[in-house]
Amino acid sequence: MYIYFDCIPCFARQSVEAAVMATKDPTLREKIIRAALKKASEIPLNKTPAHMGMEIHRIIRNLIGEVDPYRTIKSVYNKKALALYPEMKNLVTHASDRIETAVRIAIAGNVIDFGISPTNNEIELNKIIDETMRKPIAVNDLEELKEALENEERILYIADNAGEIVFDRVFIEEIPRFSERVTFAVKGQAVLNDATLKDAEETDMTGIVRVIDNGSDAPGTILETCSKRFRNEFSQADLVISKGQGNYETLSDCGEKCCFLLKAKCPVIAGHFGIEVGDLIIKITK
Amino acid sequence: MYIYFDCIPCFARQSVEAAVMATKDPTLREKIIRAALKKASEIPLNKTPAHMGMEIHRIIRNLIGEVDPYRTIKSVYNKKALALYPEMKNLVTHASDRIETAVRIAIAGNVIDFGISPTNNEIELNKIIDETMRKPIAVNDLEELKEALENEERILYIADNAGEIVFDRVFIEEIPRFSERVTFAVKGQAVLNDATLKDAEETDMTGIVRVIDNGSDAPGTILETCSKRFRNEFSQADLVISKGQGNYETLSDCGEKCCFLLKAKCPVIAGHFGIEVGDLIIKITK
Repeated sequence: MYIYFDCIPCFARQSVEAAVMATKDPTLREKIIRAALKKASEIPLNKTPAHMGMEIHRIIRNLIGEVDPYRTIKSVYNKKALALYPEMKNLVTHASDRIETAVRIAIAGNVIDFGISPTNNEIELNKIIDETMRKPIAVNDLEELKEALENEERILYIADNAGEIVFDRVFIEEIPRFSERVTFAVKGQAVLNDATLKDAEETDMTGIVRVIDNGSDAPGTILETCSKRFRNEFSQADLVISKGQGNYETLSDCGEKCCFLLKAKCPVIAGHFGIEVGDLIIKITK
Repeated sequence: MYIYFDCIPCFARQSVEAAVMATKDPTLREKIIRAALKKASEIPLNKTPAHMGMEIHRIIRNLIGEVDPYRTIKSVYNKKALALYPEMKNLVTHASDRIETAVRIAIAGNVIDFGISPTNNEIELNKIIDETMRKPIAVNDLEELKEALENEERILYIADNAGEIVFDRVFIEEIPRFSERVTFAVKGQAVLNDATLKDAEETDMTGIVRVIDNGSDAPGTILETCSKRFRNEFSQADLVISKGQGNYETLSDCGEKCCFLLKAKCPVIAGHFGIEVGDLIIKITK
């Protein structure tokens, strides 16, 4: 999915918000914003929105000289999500359709996203779970997903954000023989609040499945920025489960069998699917 | 009022929207957006937001080679507003407080603004008038304004947008001896949908008061970009009545006796006044 004109104000907004989150120094904030705007003025429109996100966060890390400026807040969200883990497991245990409930939980976790909505510092995660349980699924390939979970052996689960991965864990634990079949992929370097190996460790994802990193610092999966090892895993997977908007934007045309689980978080992606902002998506390709 | 960080995504949004309004050619749109982002990356933060607006619209006029890209839509709004003129006059005639009603009408007209909300192509002006009649005035110097209208002889009325100036006319006609006391100032060159001499003619403002132009192409009143003649009028005025957010941003610290009539159209200006977006403002300085 390429950059739309309407993505451009959003890049500017993300730059300002990310700068404000990353440092308290107003001079540094200004430098970040100016550099990001200049970069935005040069970005090729045949790239995905995640390319611009990658550039913004490279600028931030470079200018403030920190490799993981959002480390603290990521750990906070891992802890918040872990505190909800027993409740989420309970929801699944008592569900009439365990897979549907677990998938809905995984999508609910997708709300923890500082790129698109940084104000969710104050979001009450249990409210979100509650809402996501009752909302109709606007793009609904749940049956095809269930079938794929039965039939496809090697599953590559591409993570999105810290905190969110605890929600993913609840879903993964519903996949038959998950410890043998599922590989969980996180980012290779810190970018915004995207999950890295550190987050997989903090949430004990490493204790239940094989976890790899993709070698990249893009807030999505831009294959040419990923390691050879990851690209091999990707092409050998029978089913890719992809979380969130950044991964959708970058993998929607990849040609592999993918199941995209996400919330439509902006008017551009909602328009792309012909649905409303906030709607839930389970979209299988191929 | 200086540029806040939060103004920057708004500049990007305005650039995209203005480019889309100004031309159908996607290559030209892209050129405009890129040039505007680059300019935004360089803008000094000790300027007013209207400086950036001026730069965006210079880029647009320059790249598309038209001196007045929004001419047609401005004439449409002049006509729409003129069609409501009898109804507005009727409201004032039957009002218990004619000045208050006329001022509220002038503020209602301030909604015609393609910079901040270009979607008001579809806005129903009579609905807006109706709402503005009933809304409490969040910053309310109406009594001081009434006093100033009694005591100050030379009044310079600084216009904002095409269409809106018909609403201004309704208010101006309530000022005692308006044809002798009021000078109406429009922009010197076209910038977005700001009123120029052509709009003053189309709405017959030229038939009721003396109309001058300010010699500038800023979407506000940046005095150093205005003609000497306008600056003389400005400094000799006993009372300046200033319409809209762009004029407030650029004149709020000018040191003259000003009455600012506007709607708070964005979170930055609302925060500046400690009020809500959409609130009405009658603010006298000095």
